[in-house]
Amino acid sequence: ENIYLVGASHFRLLLGAETVGLVKECNDNSMRTFTYSSRKTFKDFADDNHNFLTMAECQYIIKHELENLRAKDEKIIPGYPQAKLYPGKSIVRRLLTSGILVQIFPLHDREALKKLRHSWYGRVKIGYQPLDEIRCYFGETIVLYFGFLEYFTFALIPMAVIGIPYYVFAWEDYDKYVMFATFNLLWSTVILEVWKRICAVMTYRWGTLLMKRQFEEPRPGFHGVLGINPVTGREEPVYSSIKRQIRIYLVSLPFVCLCLYFSLYVMMIYFDLEQWALDYHEENQSNFSSLMLFVPSIIYAVVIEIMNRIYRYAAEFLTSWENHRLESSYQNHLVLKVLVFNFLNCFASLFYIAFVLFDMKLLRQSLATLLITSQILNQFAESLLPYWLQKRQKRRMKKRMCSPKTDSDLSLVEQIDLEREMGTYSGTFDDYLELFLQFGYVSLFSCVYPLAAVFAVLNNITEIYSDALKMCRVYKRPFAEPTANIGVWQLAFETMSVISVVTNCMLIGMSPQVNALFPDSKMDLVLTVALVEHLLLAIKFIMAFVIPDKPRDIQIKLAKLEFESLEALKQQ
Amino acid sequence: ENIYLVGASHFRLLLGAETVGLVKECNDNSMRTFTYSSRKTFKDFADDNHNFLTMAECQYIIKHELENLRAKDEKIIPGYPQAKLYPGKSIVRRLLTSGILVQIFPLHDREALKKLRHSWYGRVKIGYQPLDEIRCYFGETIVLYFGFLEYFTFALIPMAVIGIPYYVFAWEDYDKYVMFATFNLLWSTVILEVWKRICAVMTYRWGTLLMKRQFEEPRPGFHGVLGINPVTGREEPVYSSIKRQIRIYLVSLPFVCLCLYFSLYVMMIYFDLEQWALDYHEENQSNFSSLMLFVPSIIYAVVIEIMNRIYRYAAEFLTSWENHRLESSYQNHLVLKVLVFNFLNCFASLFYIAFVLFDMKLLRQSLATLLITSQILNQFAESLLPYWLQKRQKRRMKKRMCSPKTDSDLSLVEQIDLEREMGTYSGTFDDYLELFLQFGYVSLFSCVYPLAAVFAVLNNITEIYSDALKMCRVYKRPFAEPTANIGVWQLAFETMSVISVVTNCMLIGMSPQVNALFPDSKMDLVLTVALVEHLLLAIKFIMAFVIPDKPRDIQIKLAKLEFESLEALKQQ
Repeated sequence: ENIYLVGASHFRLLLGAETVGLVKECNDNSMRTFTYSSRKTFKDFADDNHNFLTMAECQYIIKHELENLRAKDEKIIPGYPQAKLYPGKSIVRRLLTSGILVQIFPLHDREALKKLRHSWYGRVKIGYQPLDEIRCYFGETIVLYFGFLEYFTFALIPMAVIGIPYYVFAWEDYDKYVMFATFNLLWSTVILEVWKRICAVMTYRWGTLLMKRQFEEPRPGFHGVLGINPVTGREEPVYSSIKRQIRIYLVSLPFVCLCLYFSLYVMMIYFDLEQWALDYHEENQSNFSSLMLFVPSIIYAVVIEIMNRIYRYAAEFLTSWENHRLESSYQNHLVLKVLVFNFLNCFASLFYIAFVLFDMKLLRQSLATLLITSQILNQFAESLLPYWLQKRQKRRMKKRMCSPKTDSDLSLVEQIDLEREMGTYSGTFDDYLELFLQFGYVSLFSCVYPLAAVFAVLNNITEIYSDALKMCRVYKRPFAEPTANIGVWQLAFETMSVISVVTNCMLIGMSPQVNALFPDSKMDLVLTVALVEHLLLAIKFIMAFVIPDKPRDIQIKLAKLEFESLEALKQQ
Repeated sequence: ENIYLVGASHFRLLLGAETVGLVKECNDNSMRTFTYSSRKTFKDFADDNHNFLTMAECQYIIKHELENLRAKDEKIIPGYPQAKLYPGKSIVRRLLTSGILVQIFPLHDREALKKLRHSWYGRVKIGYQPLDEIRCYFGETIVLYFGFLEYFTFALIPMAVIGIPYYVFAWEDYDKYVMFATFNLLWSTVILEVWKRICAVMTYRWGTLLMKRQFEEPRPGFHGVLGINPVTGREEPVYSSIKRQIRIYLVSLPFVCLCLYFSLYVMMIYFDLEQWALDYHEENQSNFSSLMLFVPSIIYAVVIEIMNRIYRYAAEFLTSWENHRLESSYQNHLVLKVLVFNFLNCFASLFYIAFVLFDMKLLRQSLATLLITSQILNQFAESLLPYWLQKRQKRRMKKRMCSPKTDSDLSLVEQIDLEREMGTYSGTFDDYLELFLQFGYVSLFSCVYPLAAVFAVLNNITEIYSDALKMCRVYKRPFAEPTANIGVWQLAFETMSVISVVTNCMLIGMSPQVNALFPDSKMDLVLTVALVEHLLLAIKFIMAFVIPDKPRDIQIKLAKLEFESLEALKQQ
């Protein structure tokens, strides 16, 4: 096996920055697309300043250039008769898919990583994460996740603070619950809108807000018969959209429905278990039996997590079998599949308890068990377990190398040997999904269990640290990817907050205290609840519409850039 | 008084087409931004073909060039010491606001207009409107209105066809009403989504879909103290956004609320009148008294129309007093004000009858009276009255000129004399508003009065002709304005269709037949209705999300253009 280390000279990197269309800050504080000829006008640019481009940017440029090495003619790779190159196709991708290239990954920079670790989680401190530093090292996709996680944690604090007295004083006064729920519903709209603004501010500073989208090449797994692509006019594999639709609607959709049915079936088993535990407790009335009451919920929480993970693999397999041409379309279909299943899998039992059994006490207990168990499981499975495995692996490796060196003394070859054995970070999908489900636990039934926000905040604070540990210690350094927002997750969170309006209104309507307000007519009660719900939904939509997605100063800066480019066009 | 006729040579027009960024079809059937240097590659281009640019495009170019004549230095217009020019400001606009230029308008082209009139409404025929011809003569804004009107009429036909048997056979069977209403609700979503696609196809063909937005200059009425515009960096009048907000929230908003209150007050008077008419009829039981039953509704319909028109002026005054910098922002605020008031003014009485009085018979009667009266009034006030006035005026003018010539024999000066006395078409606002209210009458209470769609279709067929007459005969030729969609009206129609889901579900829930299905528990009824409503709303949103806004071939063409421009950028 050969190892190739690929790097680039400063000059080549600058040319590459122009090719990928990086946006950097100019001397006059405006953000502009970098070109080599205008390089002198950019802030901090000097011919000998090798920090002008961040590490993540350099990495992105090199990866982009590698992937854009394209075959000129139809040719067989020397020595590999099964691997054929087609004109215009990426050579590196072909090498990867045919297994000649085993893996390709960026190396950690020991020095920079040490500094980053120190300022990120090295010392105990209260404060923001060093987002700009993280961005320099890991790129925008990953830092936006951490930014969102941090923002979301701060945004949950008011909910948590308001929720604590409800628990401490055991307020069962539903007037107060109504206020709490209303606050939550409007608050969740506000935080999602404000996040868009904060995200715009950050990505403007980082240049990705202005970066032009590159033309999207087919994703690596895409296959099809050779044909003419109507967009590029090039000869490349094409796959009929009808065939894909058939696969989606005749295979994937029924499969997802089957999984949903199976998940509901498991839920019914859980309720049987729950009933059994209750009967057992009533018969025995011992300490052990009262502990047993929690067992079904905990088992169910574990089963849910396991099912989520298995389904995740199935969904990935199916979506990749659907043969989407673009990575973005693949991602959208995968996210949709996974979200629908996870939503049902995690929340179906709670919906059943709330709106079929009408058992608020059980709802509160289930919610607490599910939330806490899933948080513990996630923290363990996501970071601590891999960290421990990774540590053991490293120790074994070092023993094999017979050198008691510390990390920083390792030679480059030893470092590569160590890092190539590390796991590959599979992207921010799982991390966002976890936050999404947590948001569901917090918001869907917030008026029954105000303490959920407290647990969410506590979990997220440790989550920041364990995720940081995971990024720096457990996984290979991931490829940096410029991005301007959190994409489809914004929509997912917004949908969840709409659903939570409906559930919370129903819960409040079902509470005995609110029922007592309408002693004569249940009709009036239901109508009032429906009216309030529609009003809240209307307010939500109006708020989402009225709050601008970008702060005023960013709007002005963008308008200024647009104006200048129009003027420049006129001058031509 | 002097009259200036402004025209341009073919060469100048082509240069102007490049300046405004017109998009035309190329020889290879793709749409591209026109440039003078690449003119040979465009379809139908020849140096002597003066029809390469449509009349509307020529007109738009000339207007654009006139408005972009800008003062170089600070200067007083000779002979008018009160009118001062500032550097960079449009001269023509200054001349207009200071009253030196009395009016500026494009002349009709008698020959082309005659042809257009003939193919548009000259002969009795069943068929589509000649949209391409209308577009060539009047430009995209106006043809899109006519296109939407035609499309909307066709889209209403299924509703009307399904609605007729309900009236003819006097079906009171609410099972069938439920089906009818459900069909209507989903249908209204589908037609609004499909319109976006049709609109994209048309505007792609016309080139406006691809046309880059020009930088928006301040609207003519905007005033403020001289300052630096943060976007352009130029010295120009600026007006503090806070002051505008104060005007909006402390003056406009209370005023609108007051008007809404007044409108509700008038509504209550109408109900008193209605009661009085009922009492009178019961006392007398004569033919006359049964006719009297309709009088309050008719009076109320007339009063509503009058109030709408008065409010319209007030809203225009207020919005222009709010001093918006951009025409688009002015329009948005005006549309919002007018829509809210007109919605309440037209539909409040129906809501009151339906959901407070629970009187379905009165609802049906009121709905029919309001719809038909407002349609008749509108047709009369919008087209026929102005047409008659205009005819009389023309006759008088001709008498004054003592020449019994026909229109086509008139000299240019005589034509100008005639046309400058014609009214000015105030834009498509009123026309869309009329359609919007009609859509409300048809969809909000469709399950009570299925015949509404029939009346709407009948009205729209005559509306097409009377609006065409209005455009060709009554008003000055309007300035052409390129546009790619119907703008804020799309949103307005979609909002209406969401509201109609709520009202229709409530109406069905209130019907005695559906009530009979739940003899024991009103609760179950209300819960079922609420569930169905939420399901319908969810389906609506999913449908709106799933149906792509642009047809696949347009998407591919757009992607192709984007790909080409990216490739071209790389070549540079």
